[in-house]
Amino acid sequence: MVERLDATARAGLAEGLPHWTLVEGRDAIRREFRFRDFSEAWGFLCRVALLAEAQDHHPEWSNVWNRVEILLSTHDAGGLSERDVRLARSIDALLG
Amino acid sequence: MVERLDATARAGLAEGLPHWTLVEGRDAIRREFRFRDFSEAWGFLCRVALLAEAQDHHPEWSNVWNRVEILLSTHDAGGLSERDVRLARSIDALLG
Repeated sequence: MVERLDATARAGLAEGLPHWTLVEGRDAIRREFRFRDFSEAWGFLCRVALLAEAQDHHPEWSNVWNRVEILLSTHDAGGLSERDVRLARSIDALLG
Repeated sequence: MVERLDATARAGLAEGLPHWTLVEGRDAIRREFRFRDFSEAWGFLCRVALLAEAQDHHPEWSNVWNRVEILLSTHDAGGLSERDVRLARSIDALLG
């Protein structure tokens, strides 16, 4: 069982992950990304897929041509956990 | 400009693409796919990405672990066109 983020961790989310926003009506965070075209978006998706497998934690995500939306939440925890924070940080790091 | 499907083409959709359904409130078709795990789903997504680039026609799609949803519609036509039918057929062919 994975534990949900405690109050201290939640208080630090906005500062630690400034590009991610809380999802309305769900214990999750999301971020939108925009690229030059599908090719660039797909390259990014591939890199995130590698991160997801390495961390054994997978996003809910969608793509429409050059746009990507990623939502993170931990099914086993019933909401946000350290796994989401870790994956979000790794995704942000891809963008430099 | 790409032309929207005419009445004859639309009448043949259900028979030609039996796994795809019309989307409520939008001129589009969709299909859901389920795989053993993320790895298998991702392999499928990669193959569809190659089709999309080859046909210069891209899906609106989402993935949650072993589940994939693909929606097809043609932006330039403001709805369903031959491009969607072609891509749907190619996607179906991947699954044998």
